Amino acid sequence: MTVGIHIIADLYGVDEELISTSENVLSVIEESVRISGLTKISSDYYQFQPKGVSGIVLLAESHLSFHTWPEHNLVTLDIYTCGDPHHADLAFNYIVTKLSPTSIDYKKLTRGNQIAEDVKIVSPEHVIIQ
Amino acid sequence: MTVGIHIIADLYGVDEELISTSENVLSVIEESVRISGLTKISSDYYQFQPKGVSGIVLLAESHLSFHTWPEHNLVTLDIYTCGDPHHADLAFNYIVTKLSPTSIDYKKLTRGNQIAEDVKIVSPEHVIIQ
Repeated sequence: MTVGIHIIADLYGVDEELISTSENVLSVIEESVRISGLTKISSDYYQFQPKGVSGIVLLAESHLSFHTWPEHNLVTLDIYTCGDPHHADLAFNYIVTKLSPTSIDYKKLTRGNQIAEDVKIVSPEHVIIQ
Repeated sequence: MTVGIHIIADLYGVDEELISTSENVLSVIEESVRISGLTKISSDYYQFQPKGVSGIVLLAESHLSFHTWPEHNLVTLDIYTCGDPHHADLAFNYIVTKLSPTSIDYKKLTRGNQIAEDVKIVSPEHVIIQ
């Protein structure tokens, strides 16, 4: 049993213009959350000078974070959900489609792997841990 | 060359009371950022009912996120910094000291591993990529 899945992706070769301003980044991120079925609680974006953006979305299902290095044509993206994993995939696919990276370093982790399963006490002498 | 380090840690066996309310979680997280030298831009906390908290801190150096499952005595923690890695370690150590988990599943990733180093053109026929 786990509590969620966590997509960790570094996107290379992204057009610098797409990731230089919070205005551009905000529209991609907010739309990725909206179309994927993730549940936004709040979001915040920070514009670095002269260029570069950090964006973070607090989700009912965990979070999405997005940090850009336009000078390296790089985005580092995390999508972590304790809800339907398919929603994270949808958000990821939307962002990749919008940013068209030339390569992606992608990992998908599970979180909370070591929590105990529900303990079902069948009888005082018979405990099943599934 | 990389752009930063990312601590990914699942903390097990944490006292349920410590991680049930945003009030408790907020004090640990905000202090971890303050004492470690990380630079907070903003933070947001969400209280789940009847218990459980999500907290996220947008940092000038990237972000810190914290999600709790009191019913599983579990915290999933991420500290990602493009600044001094030591600051992330200090924040991590502070949180662990405060929460006293019985076990930790800990990973430290580097992000943006594949960005090109500065290209030094020595002569038209001699390009060094370091």
